[in-house]
Order: sequence, then C-alpha cells, then structure tokens
Amino acid sequence: MKVLFVIAHPDKNSFNHSLLDAAVKRLESQGNEVKVSDLYAMTFKAIVDADDFLNHEEGTRLKVGEASFAATESHQLTDDVVAEQEKLKWADTVIFQFPIWWSSMPAMMKGWFDRVFSSGFGYNYGIRTDTRYGDRFGEGVMEGKRAFIITTIGSSKEQYSERGISGSINDILFPINHNTLFYAGFSVLPPIVTFRADSRREEVYVNAEKAVLERMDNLATVEPIHYRRQNFGDYTIPELTLKEGLEQPDQAHFDIHIERV
Amino acid sequence: MKVLFVIAHPDKNSFNHSLLDAAVKRLESQGNEVKVSDLYAMTFKAIVDADDFLNHEEGTRLKVGEASFAATESHQLTDDVVAEQEKLKWADTVIFQFPIWWSSMPAMMKGWFDRVFSSGFGYNYGIRTDTRYGDRFGEGVMEGKRAFIITTIGSSKEQYSERGISGSINDILFPINHNTLFYAGFSVLPPIVTFRADSRREEVYVNAEKAVLERMDNLATVEPIHYRRQNFGDYTIPELTLKEGLEQPDQAHFDIHIERV
Repeated sequence: MKVLFVIAHPDKNSFNHSLLDAAVKRLESQGNEVKVSDLYAMTFKAIVDADDFLNHEEGTRLKVGEASFAATESHQLTDDVVAEQEKLKWADTVIFQFPIWWSSMPAMMKGWFDRVFSSGFGYNYGIRTDTRYGDRFGEGVMEGKRAFIITTIGSSKEQYSERGISGSINDILFPINHNTLFYAGFSVLPPIVTFRADSRREEVYVNAEKAVLERMDNLATVEPIHYRRQNFGDYTIPELTLKEGLEQPDQAHFDIHIERV
Repeated sequence: MKVLFVIAHPDKNSFNHSLLDAAVKRLESQGNEVKVSDLYAMTFKAIVDADDFLNHEEGTRLKVGEASFAATESHQLTDDVVAEQEKLKWADTVIFQFPIWWSSMPAMMKGWFDRVFSSGFGYNYGIRTDTRYGDRFGEGVMEGKRAFIITTIGSSKEQYSERGISGSINDILFPINHNTLFYAGFSVLPPIVTFRADSRREEVYVNAEKAVLERMDNLATVEPIHYRRQNFGDYTIPELTLKEGLEQPDQAHFDIHIERV
C-alpha cells in the first residue's frame, strides 16, 4: 500500500511523533511505501493569502474561492501546495496526526487543509444537475482512498463521552471526518484517539502504540464510518437536507448522517 | 463599552472587512471605545512552537501545555501574545470575525486561540476540589465579558440547517462557542451568520450589515446562549458528564449542554 502521513506537532520527541515513527517502521517492514508530510519540519506555510495564487492580480480584491479555483484550473498554485496534492494523488491511504487543541486541529494542520484542498481540487469539483450537486460527500478527487485521524487529547475520555461536557469525540471530529475528508471523497475510518496523553503513565503510550500498530496491520480491511453519500437519494437536491424518516429514532444532530448497517 | 474585534480575512476589501468597518463606525459614533486585532494586517504568528515560550530550554522536549503554563506564570510569553491578552483584559465585549473554511476557523484565527489562550490564562485556571474542576465552562479569566462570532459561509442556510448535510450551524460552531469561548469564561451571544456570502446579490450584504448594526446597538442586552456552567451541580466531578435527566427529551448531543429557559 501507499500511505501518506500528514503530521502537525512542534516537537520531534512528542507522543505523536513516537507513534508516527512506530507506525512508519511497521508499515515499511511489511513492504508498504510511506511518505510523511511533517508540517513543522517543513515549516509549511499554513496561512492562505494572495501569494498562494500565482495568477492573482496584485492589488485587486481577493475572493479566496474564486482565486483558488482560477489558480487550480490554470496550474498557478504554489509548488508547496502542488507537492501536497501530488502526494494525495499518489497515496491510497492518508493518515492525519495531530494533538487536539481547542476541540480542533492545531492551526498548522488547519492551514494545510485551507491551502491544499483548493477549489477545483478539494471542493467545487464535478457537475451540478437536478439530481447531483457536484462530486462531494462520498465522491470527489479522493474517491477510492481511505483516510483517518490519529489524535491525542489532554482531557479524559469521560469528558468527551456522549454526556461529557466537551461533547462526544465523534461529534467533535465530525467537521473534519465528515465535512472535510468524506466531503473530498475519502472513505473515513474510525479515528484512533488517546485521552490523557499528557499523563506520565507509561501505559498510556503503550496502549496508544498498540492501537496504532494494529490499525497499520489492518489498513485495507477496517470498516469505514457509514456516512450517507450526497448524490444517491438520501438528500434533497439542491437543499442538501436529509430526507425525512431515514434515520433511526435514536439518531439526532450529526449522527443522522451515518447509516446504521 | 470597550469592544475588541479579532478578525481574520486576507482581503481588506472583503465582505467581512466591510462589515467590520460598518460596525466600528457605528460603535464609535455612539461613544464606545473600539480596538481591532486585524490578524492578517498584523501578520500575526499563528503557529505554536518553542519560540513562543521564552523560558523554554532549547533542544529539550517541548510539552506544549507545560511550557505554556511555565511561560504564562513567569511572564515569559512573547510580546505579541501578551499584547493580545492585554486587549482581552481591557475589553468587555469581544467579537470574532472570520469566514468559515472547512467547517471551522481559518488557520490564522485558530492560531490566535492556540497561542493567546495560553495555559494558566485561557485554560488550566483555578483550583480543583471535590466540587469544582478549575475555573472553566462559565468561569475563568473572561468571566463577566461577552463574546460572539460574526461569520460568513459560502453554502446555503439549508445545508447548515438541522437536517442539512453539513450539520446545523450551531453544532458546527459549538467547538468555538462552548468549548473555547464559554470554556474561558465568556458569556456567549448567538452568532451572526451570513450564508451565500459569495453570492453577488447586493441584498446579501445589506442584510448582513443590518444584522451587524442591530447587534452593535444591543451588545449589552442581547441574551447569551444558556450553556450550563460546569461547577454548579449539573455535572459530575471529576468526570464532567451531565447528570441524568437534566436535559429535555428532544435535546441530544451538543444540545444537552444548553439549559432551556
């Protein structure tokens, strides 16, 4: 398999980097090809601005979506963004690794999505008709590829449980898993989440590494999250609302977009 | 009143900046004091790294939470972060303005939270006992201040409705409104959201400006979102899960953390 890791952590000796090293070693020992985008090591530019779009006319208004589309279509994106897009095209599995800060990705990782998932590549892709609304949510440039998150959280599992004050971890990750990865066409595997990663207990790391290595051995066979695809009858077009009665009685909020199987 | 705007948009002529200009003008004309942190204009450093903590020993492992706490406690944060913290202390109302990209903040805005809400300031604040778990979720350094989001989205309102494929806008903003702003002690007012902001219809802007100006006239009186406070009996300590039976039957997921009044 061809596996791309995209990792955002400022410390090479971190919990996250140790997990990465173990995962890469395991994959390579089994004959897989691995590439790593270590965003801090690359000093990846995380901020979208006019410099990202080589054909943007200086001094004119920057409408980000339009500028991004124009640059994507005419091959006027910057080399660093194109290099990341090429890695994505190359990979069959993409793993995003980062600590949760403020219930979301660190700015470095967010900026990778802001820039690399350009208009005409990560979104605004495919045609719109009466029965389909572009290639997105289950279709798109990443169709046929798998992706998932490996993340660490300082707080407890209880705090991120169904009744936890921070909301369930699945709800917290929905904007990334569903609205970003699945949106771009990926099949999204369940995340690997380590709680209390700041704990000094050795077993926290040992258990995390065990879960990661097990996943590495099963990348091709783990069942993806069953998000409903946009263009296959479950949603009204063009409103993009879930048709009535499709969810189970105990499903609500983000959860209605997952099909029980 | 003393109002701080924190805005992240790369274009000075954007929809967002036009709303900002209108809001500032209205506030100042009524005798309020206004400060603006225009993060792109400031070329604000959005990426957390070892340089953020002046007392961090070069070459040693960077545990971000610990380094952040040590720097906050010993006044060894960088000047740019301290300046933002001072503005927060000065303000009685803080308004965050940004476009929604990938169901969240642009990296520039996320990085502002990652850096400015340091450990011992934005989190890890207050004592822990059998009956309280730090000053957070309704208590904390921002207690007594109000905050809210003004944002723009390219998609339709339907797509971000209760049954919309992207999830409801209130759920999408929960990680910011509840897990970040309310967490740090702010009273959080309902967001002002403009959908289809990329539309070329003039009325979209006109309606947005109208909503913003109306809010400026009512900053002190608009009712905050009734998030449940952490340390006042609704949550188990230290698990931080909502006690059974407190929510209404039709409340689920993030919604259970809002008290119906």
